[in-house]
Amino acid sequence: MTPMSAPDGKIGKQDAHLLETQASSEKILKGHFLQVFRDTVTLPDGKHTTREYVVHPGAVMIVALLDDGKVVLERQYRYPVQAVMIEFPAGKLDAGESSLACAQRELREETGYTAREWARAGVLHPVISYSTEFIDIWFARGLTLGERKLDAGEFLDVFTATPAELLGWCGNGQVTDAKTLTGMLWLQNMLSGAWTLEWQAAGP
Amino acid sequence: MTPMSAPDGKIGKQDAHLLETQASSEKILKGHFLQVFRDTVTLPDGKHTTREYVVHPGAVMIVALLDDGKVVLERQYRYPVQAVMIEFPAGKLDAGESSLACAQRELREETGYTAREWARAGVLHPVISYSTEFIDIWFARGLTLGERKLDAGEFLDVFTATPAELLGWCGNGQVTDAKTLTGMLWLQNMLSGAWTLEWQAAGP
Repeated sequence: MTPMSAPDGKIGKQDAHLLETQASSEKILKGHFLQVFRDTVTLPDGKHTTREYVVHPGAVMIVALLDDGKVVLERQYRYPVQAVMIEFPAGKLDAGESSLACAQRELREETGYTAREWARAGVLHPVISYSTEFIDIWFARGLTLGERKLDAGEFLDVFTATPAELLGWCGNGQVTDAKTLTGMLWLQNMLSGAWTLEWQAAGP
Repeated sequence: MTPMSAPDGKIGKQDAHLLETQASSEKILKGHFLQVFRDTVTLPDGKHTTREYVVHPGAVMIVALLDDGKVVLERQYRYPVQAVMIEFPAGKLDAGESSLACAQRELREETGYTAREWARAGVLHPVISYSTEFIDIWFARGLTLGERKLDAGEFLDVFTATPAELLGWCGNGQVTDAKTLTGMLWLQNMLSGAWTLEWQAAGP
Protein backbone atom coordinates (compact mmCIF):
# COMPACT_ATOMS: atom_id res chain seq x y z
CA MET A 1 0.00 0.00 0.00
CA THR A 2 2.96 2.33 -0.55
CA PRO A 3 4.03 3.63 -3.94
CA MET A 4 6.10 1.12 -5.90
CA SER A 5 8.55 3.91 -6.67
CA ALA A 6 9.06 7.58 -6.02
CA PRO A 7 5.69 8.97 -7.11
CA ASP A 8 7.15 11.60 -9.39
CA GLY A 9 5.83 10.54 -12.77
CA LYS A 10 9.28 9.32 -13.74
CA ILE A 11 9.11 5.86 -15.19
CA GLY A 12 11.38 3.09 -14.06
CA LYS A 13 11.55 -0.68 -14.41
CA GLN A 14 9.27 -1.00 -11.42
CA ASP A 15 6.46 0.58 -13.47
CA ALA A 16 6.45 -2.01 -16.27
CA HIS A 17 3.16 -3.36 -14.92
CA LEU A 18 1.51 0.02 -15.67
CA LEU A 19 3.01 1.13 -19.00
CA GLU A 20 1.32 1.42 -22.37
CA THR A 21 3.38 1.68 -25.53
CA GLN A 22 2.42 3.02 -28.93
CA ALA A 23 1.80 0.44 -31.67
CA SER A 24 0.45 2.89 -34.25
CA SER A 25 -1.00 6.41 -34.47
CA GLU A 26 -3.58 8.01 -36.73
CA LYS A 27 -4.91 11.57 -36.92
CA ILE A 28 -8.68 11.29 -36.79
CA LEU A 29 -9.68 14.97 -36.58
CA LYS A 30 -8.01 17.98 -38.12
CA GLY A 31 -10.23 20.72 -36.70
CA HIS A 32 -9.87 24.49 -36.77
CA PHE A 33 -8.90 24.27 -33.10
CA LEU A 34 -8.87 20.62 -32.01
CA GLN A 35 -6.41 18.07 -33.37
CA VAL A 36 -7.36 14.53 -32.32
CA PHE A 37 -5.33 11.34 -32.62
CA ARG A 38 -6.23 7.68 -32.14
CA ASP A 39 -3.31 5.47 -31.17
CA THR A 40 -3.30 1.73 -30.88
CA VAL A 41 -1.36 0.89 -27.73
CA THR A 42 0.05 -2.26 -26.20
CA LEU A 43 -1.15 -2.75 -22.63
CA PRO A 44 0.97 -4.15 -19.78
CA ASP A 45 -0.61 -7.61 -20.36
CA GLY A 46 0.32 -7.56 -24.06
CA LYS A 47 -3.22 -6.93 -25.27
CA HIS A 48 -4.09 -3.95 -27.44
CA THR A 49 -6.54 -1.08 -27.08
CA THR A 50 -7.01 2.38 -28.53
CA ARG A 51 -6.43 5.77 -26.90
CA GLU A 52 -7.99 8.91 -28.37
CA TYR A 53 -6.61 12.28 -27.33
CA VAL A 54 -6.36 15.95 -28.21
CA VAL A 55 -2.90 17.25 -29.07
CA HIS A 56 -2.51 20.68 -27.48
CA PRO A 57 0.42 23.14 -27.65
CA GLY A 58 0.35 23.82 -23.90
CA ALA A 59 -0.73 26.93 -22.00
CA VAL A 60 0.07 29.23 -19.12
CA MET A 61 -1.91 30.66 -16.20
CA ILE A 62 -0.99 33.77 -14.24
CA VAL A 63 -1.67 34.48 -10.56
CA ALA A 64 -1.03 38.24 -10.58
CA LEU A 65 -0.60 39.87 -7.15
CA LEU A 66 -1.44 43.56 -6.76
CA ASP A 67 0.42 45.70 -4.22
CA ASP A 68 -2.77 45.87 -2.09
CA GLY A 69 -2.82 42.06 -1.78
CA LYS A 70 -5.60 41.45 -4.30
CA VAL A 71 -5.32 39.15 -7.31
CA VAL A 72 -6.35 39.79 -10.92
CA LEU A 73 -9.28 37.69 -12.17
CA GLU A 74 -11.46 37.40 -15.25
CA ARG A 75 -15.07 36.61 -15.94
CA GLN A 76 -15.52 34.92 -19.29
CA TYR A 77 -18.33 33.00 -20.97
CA ARG A 78 -17.17 29.48 -21.72
CA TYR A 79 -19.29 27.97 -24.44
CA PRO A 80 -18.71 24.23 -23.75
CA VAL A 81 -19.96 24.59 -20.16
CA GLN A 82 -22.52 27.33 -20.98
CA ALA A 83 -21.53 29.51 -18.06
CA VAL A 84 -19.67 32.68 -17.15
CA MET A 85 -16.57 31.41 -15.33
CA ILE A 86 -14.26 33.14 -12.86
CA GLU A 87 -10.68 32.42 -13.90
CA PHE A 88 -7.10 33.44 -13.49
CA PRO A 89 -5.79 34.91 -16.78
CA ALA A 90 -4.50 32.16 -19.07
CA GLY A 91 -3.71 31.42 -22.67
CA LYS A 92 -2.12 29.07 -25.16
CA LEU A 93 1.53 29.06 -26.17
CA ASP A 94 2.24 30.41 -29.64
CA ALA A 95 4.58 28.32 -31.80
CA GLY A 96 8.14 28.71 -30.53
CA GLU A 97 7.12 30.99 -27.67
CA SER A 98 8.66 30.46 -24.22
CA SER A 99 6.38 29.86 -21.27
CA LEU A 100 7.40 33.14 -19.58
CA ALA A 101 7.00 35.19 -22.75
CA CYS A 102 3.53 33.69 -23.18
CA ALA A 103 2.59 34.51 -19.57
CA GLN A 104 3.77 38.11 -20.00
CA ARG A 105 1.91 38.47 -23.31
CA GLU A 106 -1.36 36.93 -22.09
CA LEU A 107 -1.41 39.00 -18.89
CA ARG A 108 -0.81 42.20 -20.88
CA GLU A 109 -3.26 41.41 -23.68
CA GLU A 110 -6.12 40.15 -21.51
CA THR A 111 -5.83 42.45 -18.48
CA GLY A 112 -3.49 45.33 -19.42
CA TYR A 113 -1.08 44.54 -16.58
CA THR A 114 2.68 44.20 -16.85
CA ALA A 115 4.73 42.83 -13.94
CA ARG A 116 8.21 43.62 -12.63
CA GLU A 117 8.78 40.14 -11.21
CA TRP A 118 7.78 36.63 -12.19
CA ALA A 119 8.01 33.19 -10.56
CA ARG A 120 7.17 29.82 -12.09
CA ALA A 121 5.28 27.84 -9.44
CA GLY A 122 4.74 24.56 -11.28
CA VAL A 123 2.61 22.87 -13.88
CA LEU A 124 -0.80 21.24 -14.01
CA HIS A 125 -2.34 18.76 -16.43
CA PRO A 126 -6.05 19.54 -16.83
CA VAL A 127 -7.23 16.38 -18.52
CA ILE A 128 -4.78 13.51 -18.42
CA SER A 129 -7.19 10.96 -19.90
CA TYR A 130 -7.70 12.67 -23.26
CA SER A 131 -5.39 15.66 -23.86
CA THR A 132 -1.67 16.36 -23.94
CA GLU A 133 -2.36 19.84 -22.53
CA PHE A 134 -0.19 21.22 -19.72
CA ILE A 135 -0.62 24.61 -18.06
CA ASP A 136 2.45 26.30 -16.56
CA ILE A 137 1.56 28.18 -13.37
CA TRP A 138 3.16 31.64 -13.09
CA PHE A 139 3.01 34.21 -10.29
CA ALA A 140 3.53 37.90 -11.11
CA ARG A 141 4.04 40.93 -8.84
CA GLY A 142 5.03 44.57 -9.14
CA LEU A 143 2.09 45.21 -11.46
CA THR A 144 1.49 48.29 -13.61
CA LEU A 145 -1.82 48.78 -15.40
CA GLY A 146 -1.74 49.72 -19.07
CA GLU A 147 -4.02 49.18 -22.02
CA ARG A 148 -5.41 45.70 -22.66
CA LYS A 149 -5.60 44.37 -26.21
CA LEU A 150 -8.01 41.46 -26.59
CA ASP A 151 -7.86 39.12 -29.56
CA ALA A 152 -10.65 39.46 -32.11
CA GLY A 153 -13.62 37.48 -30.83
CA GLU A 154 -12.39 37.56 -27.21
CA PHE A 155 -14.80 39.05 -24.65
CA LEU A 156 -14.01 39.07 -20.94
CA ASP A 157 -14.30 41.24 -17.83
CA VAL A 158 -11.29 41.90 -15.61
CA PHE A 159 -11.74 42.41 -11.88
CA THR A 160 -9.78 42.03 -8.65
CA ALA A 161 -10.49 40.20 -5.40
CA THR A 162 -8.74 39.39 -2.16
CA PRO A 163 -7.34 35.86 -1.75
CA ALA A 164 -9.93 35.36 1.04
CA GLU A 165 -12.80 36.28 -1.32
CA LEU A 166 -11.49 33.93 -4.00
CA LEU A 167 -11.04 31.13 -1.46
CA GLY A 168 -14.65 31.61 -0.40
CA TRP A 169 -15.84 31.32 -4.02
CA CYS A 170 -13.76 28.12 -4.44
CA GLY A 171 -15.49 26.64 -1.40
CA ASN A 172 -19.06 27.66 -2.22
CA GLY A 173 -19.11 26.57 -5.85
CA GLN A 174 -18.76 29.96 -7.55
CA VAL A 175 -15.33 28.93 -8.89
CA THR A 176 -15.24 25.51 -10.59
CA ASP A 177 -12.52 25.98 -13.20
CA ALA A 178 -9.80 23.42 -12.39
CA LYS A 179 -6.83 25.63 -13.30
CA THR A 180 -8.16 28.43 -11.10
CA LEU A 181 -8.80 26.02 -8.21
CA THR A 182 -5.22 24.81 -8.63
CA GLY A 183 -4.02 28.43 -8.64
CA MET A 184 -5.90 28.89 -5.37
CA LEU A 185 -4.06 25.90 -3.84
CA TRP A 186 -0.78 27.56 -4.81
CA LEU A 187 -1.88 30.99 -3.59
CA GLN A 188 -3.06 29.66 -0.23
CA ASN A 189 0.15 27.73 0.45
CA MET A 190 2.38 30.51 -0.85
CA LEU A 191 0.67 33.11 1.38
CA SER A 192 0.92 30.82 4.44
CA GLY A 193 4.64 30.36 3.80
CA ALA A 194 4.31 26.59 3.32
CA TRP A 195 5.40 26.83 -0.32
CA THR A 196 8.01 29.24 -1.63
CA LEU A 197 8.58 30.85 -5.01
CA GLU A 198 11.79 31.88 -6.75
CA TRP A 199 11.19 35.33 -8.18
CA GLN A 200 13.02 36.64 -11.23
CA ALA A 201 13.06 40.12 -12.80
CA ALA A 202 10.84 40.48 -15.84
CA GLY A 203 13.75 41.27 -18.11
CA PRO A 204 13.96 43.99 -20.73
CA MET B 1 -12.74 46.47 -11.50
CA THR B 2 -15.43 44.60 -9.57
CA PRO B 3 -17.51 41.79 -11.01
CA MET B 4 -20.45 43.05 -13.07
CA SER B 5 -22.68 40.61 -11.19
CA ALA B 6 -22.48 37.97 -8.55
CA PRO B 7 -19.63 35.82 -9.88
CA ASP B 8 -21.55 32.57 -9.66
CA GLY B 9 -21.71 31.48 -13.28
CA LYS B 10 -25.39 32.36 -13.38
CA ILE B 11 -26.16 34.47 -16.38
CA GLY B 12 -28.15 37.68 -16.15
CA LYS B 13 -28.84 40.65 -18.40
CA GLN B 14 -25.68 42.27 -17.12
CA ASP B 15 -23.68 39.53 -18.88
CA ALA B 16 -25.01 40.21 -22.39
CA HIS B 17 -21.61 41.67 -23.33
CA LEU B 18 -20.00 38.24 -22.69
CA LEU B 19 -22.50 35.72 -24.07
CA GLU B 20 -22.18 33.49 -27.09
CA THR B 21 -25.23 31.80 -28.58
CA GLN B 22 -25.46 28.76 -30.82
CA ALA B 23 -26.22 29.40 -34.49
CA SER B 24 -25.63 25.81 -35.66
CA SER B 25 -23.99 22.59 -34.48
CA GLU B 26 -22.27 19.74 -36.31
CA LYS B 27 -20.73 16.51 -35.04
CA ILE B 28 -17.24 16.39 -36.51
CA LEU B 29 -15.83 13.29 -34.76
CA LYS B 30 -17.60 10.14 -33.70
CA GLY B 31 -14.73 8.35 -31.99
CA HIS B 32 -14.65 5.19 -29.91
CA PHE B 33 -14.21 7.43 -26.87
CA LEU B 34 -14.24 11.08 -27.98
CA GLN B 35 -17.30 12.78 -29.45
CA VAL B 36 -16.42 16.19 -30.89
CA PHE B 37 -18.77 18.94 -32.07
CA ARG B 38 -18.18 22.15 -34.00
CA ASP B 39 -20.73 24.86 -33.34
CA THR B 40 -21.07 28.15 -35.11
CA VAL B 41 -21.77 30.76 -32.44
CA THR B 42 -22.85 34.38 -32.45
CA LEU B 43 -20.47 36.56 -30.44
CA PRO B 44 -21.52 39.49 -28.24
CA ASP B 45 -20.68 41.89 -31.10
CA GLY B 46 -22.91 39.99 -33.55
CA LYS B 47 -20.01 38.42 -35.45
CA HIS B 48 -19.69 34.67 -35.82
CA THR B 49 -16.98 32.17 -34.94
CA THR B 50 -16.70 28.43 -34.38
CA ARG B 51 -16.24 26.54 -31.11
CA GLU B 52 -15.00 22.93 -31.14
CA TYR B 53 -15.50 20.83 -28.03
CA VAL B 54 -15.63 17.32 -26.65
CA VAL B 55 -19.01 16.16 -25.32
CA HIS B 56 -18.37 14.17 -22.13
CA PRO B 57 -20.86 12.35 -19.85
CA GLY B 58 -19.32 13.77 -16.65
CA ALA B 59 -17.28 12.07 -13.98
CA VAL B 60 -16.66 11.76 -10.26
CA MET B 61 -13.59 11.88 -8.02
CA ILE B 62 -13.35 10.42 -4.54
CA VAL B 63 -11.26 11.71 -1.61
CA ALA B 64 -11.43 8.62 0.61
CA LEU B 65 -10.36 9.13 4.24
CA LEU B 66 -9.03 6.16 6.19
CA ASP B 67 -9.53 5.93 9.94
CA ASP B 68 -5.79 6.56 10.47
CA GLY B 69 -6.07 9.92 8.66
CA LYS B 70 -4.50 8.76 5.38
CA VAL B 71 -6.15 9.11 1.97
CA VAL B 72 -6.48 6.54 -0.82
CA LEU B 73 -4.51 7.31 -3.98
CA GLU B 74 -3.68 5.65 -7.26
CA ARG B 75 -0.71 5.56 -9.58
CA GLN B 76 -1.74 5.12 -13.19
CA TYR B 77 -0.01 5.51 -16.53
CA ARG B 78 -1.75 8.21 -18.55
CA TYR B 79 -0.98 7.78 -22.21
CA PRO B 80 -1.68 11.34 -23.46
CA VAL B 81 0.86 12.82 -21.02
CA GLN B 82 3.22 9.80 -21.14
CA ALA B 83 3.64 9.64 -17.38
CA VAL B 84 2.63 7.67 -14.30
CA MET B 85 0.31 10.06 -12.45
CA ILE B 86 -0.69 10.19 -8.79
CA GLU B 87 -4.46 10.65 -8.62
CA PHE B 88 -7.49 10.41 -6.42
CA PRO B 89 -9.76 7.58 -7.64
CA ALA B 90 -12.11 8.80 -10.37
CA GLY B 91 -14.26 7.60 -13.20
CA LYS B 92 -16.94 8.42 -15.74
CA LEU B 93 -20.67 8.31 -15.16
CA ASP B 94 -22.47 5.41 -16.79
CA ALA B 95 -25.66 6.27 -18.68
CA GLY B 96 -28.43 7.03 -16.17
CA GLU B 97 -26.14 6.53 -13.18
CA SER B 98 -26.34 8.98 -10.26
CA SER B 99 -23.21 10.79 -9.19
CA LEU B 100 -23.14 9.07 -5.78
CA ALA B 101 -23.73 5.60 -7.25
CA CYS B 102 -20.87 6.24 -9.67
CA ALA B 103 -18.57 7.37 -6.85
CA GLN B 104 -19.39 4.25 -4.82
CA ARG B 105 -18.88 1.97 -7.83
CA GLU B 106 -15.59 3.55 -8.94
CA LEU B 107 -14.10 3.50 -5.44
CA ARG B 108 -15.04 -0.16 -5.01
CA GLU B 109 -13.92 -1.28 -8.48
CA GLU B 110 -10.62 0.63 -8.56
CA THR B 111 -9.50 0.35 -4.94
CA GLY B 112 -11.67 -2.30 -3.24
CA TYR B 113 -12.92 0.16 -0.61
CA THR B 114 -16.51 0.71 0.42
CA ALA B 115 -17.49 3.64 2.65
CA ARG B 116 -20.10 4.06 5.38
CA GLU B 117 -20.50 7.81 4.82
CA TRP B 118 -20.34 10.12 1.83
CA ALA B 119 -20.33 13.90 1.31
CA ARG B 120 -20.49 15.81 -1.97
CA ALA B 121 -18.01 18.66 -1.71
CA GLY B 122 -18.56 20.38 -5.05
CA VAL B 123 -17.76 20.16 -8.73
CA LEU B 124 -14.85 21.06 -10.97
CA HIS B 125 -14.62 21.69 -14.71
CA PRO B 126 -11.27 20.41 -15.98
CA VAL B 127 -11.17 22.03 -19.39
CA ILE B 128 -13.72 24.77 -19.94
CA SER B 129 -12.34 25.82 -23.31
CA TYR B 130 -12.93 22.53 -25.14
CA SER B 131 -14.94 19.99 -23.14
CA THR B 132 -18.32 19.78 -21.43
CA GLU B 133 -16.77 17.54 -18.76
CA PHE B 134 -17.55 18.12 -15.10
CA ILE B 135 -16.15 16.12 -12.17
CA ASP B 136 -18.22 15.85 -9.00
CA ILE B 137 -16.00 15.86 -5.90
CA TRP B 138 -16.98 13.30 -3.24
CA PHE B 139 -15.50 12.61 0.18
CA ALA B 140 -15.87 9.15 1.72
CA ARG B 141 -15.14 7.88 5.24
CA GLY B 142 -15.77 4.79 7.33
CA LEU B 143 -13.84 2.67 4.82
CA THR B 144 -13.74 -1.13 4.61
CA LEU B 145 -11.32 -2.86 2.29
CA GLY B 146 -12.67 -5.59 0.02
CA GLU B 147 -11.70 -6.96 -3.36
CA ARG B 148 -11.07 -4.56 -6.22
CA LYS B 149 -12.35 -5.36 -9.70
CA LEU B 150 -10.62 -3.41 -12.45
CA ASP B 151 -12.13 -3.02 -15.90
CA ALA B 152 -10.48 -4.99 -18.68
CA GLY B 153 -7.50 -2.96 -19.89
CA GLU B 154 -7.26 -0.98 -16.64
CA PHE B 155 -3.91 -1.12 -14.79
CA LEU B 156 -3.26 0.93 -11.66
CA ASP B 157 -1.59 0.74 -8.25
CA VAL B 158 -3.45 1.72 -5.10
CA PHE B 159 -1.58 3.24 -2.15
CA THR B 160 -2.23 5.50 0.81
CA ALA B 161 -0.57 8.68 2.03
CA THR B 162 -1.06 11.29 4.72
CA PRO B 163 -2.58 14.63 3.67
CA ALA B 164 0.78 16.24 4.55
CA GLU B 165 2.63 13.88 2.19
CA LEU B 166 0.16 14.56 -0.60
CA LEU B 167 0.39 18.32 -0.01
CA GLY B 168 4.16 18.07 -0.29
CA TRP B 169 3.87 16.26 -3.64
CA CYS B 170 1.44 18.94 -4.89
CA GLY B 171 4.00 21.61 -4.02
CA ASN B 172 7.08 19.92 -5.42
CA GLY B 173 5.65 18.89 -8.79
CA GLN B 174 5.09 15.19 -8.12
CA VAL B 175 1.31 15.71 -8.42
CA THR B 176 0.21 17.68 -11.49
CA ASP B 177 -3.24 16.19 -12.22
CA ALA B 178 -5.71 19.09 -11.94
CA LYS B 179 -8.53 17.09 -10.34
CA THR B 180 -6.17 15.75 -7.67
CA LEU B 181 -4.78 19.26 -7.01
CA THR B 182 -8.37 20.45 -6.63
CA GLY B 183 -9.08 17.55 -4.27
CA MET B 184 -6.07 18.68 -2.23
CA LEU B 185 -7.52 22.21 -1.98
CA TRP B 186 -10.72 20.68 -0.60
CA LEU B 187 -8.86 18.33 1.73
CA GLN B 188 -6.67 21.11 3.14
CA ASN B 189 -9.59 23.45 3.82
CA MET B 190 -11.81 20.68 5.16
CA LEU B 191 -9.11 19.50 7.59
CA SER B 192 -8.45 23.07 8.77
CA GLY B 193 -12.16 23.54 9.45
CA ALA B 194 -12.47 26.42 6.95
CA TRP B 195 -14.80 24.38 4.71
CA THR B 196 -17.41 21.97 5.98
CA LEU B 197 -19.04 18.88 4.50
CA GLU B 198 -22.53 17.46 4.91
CA TRP B 199 -22.12 13.75 5.46
CA GLN B 200 -24.78 11.22 4.53
CA ALA B 201 -25.03 7.48 5.22
CA ALA B 202 -24.08 5.30 2.26
CA GLY B 203 -27.52 3.75 2.04
CA PRO B 204 -28.38 0.10 1.57
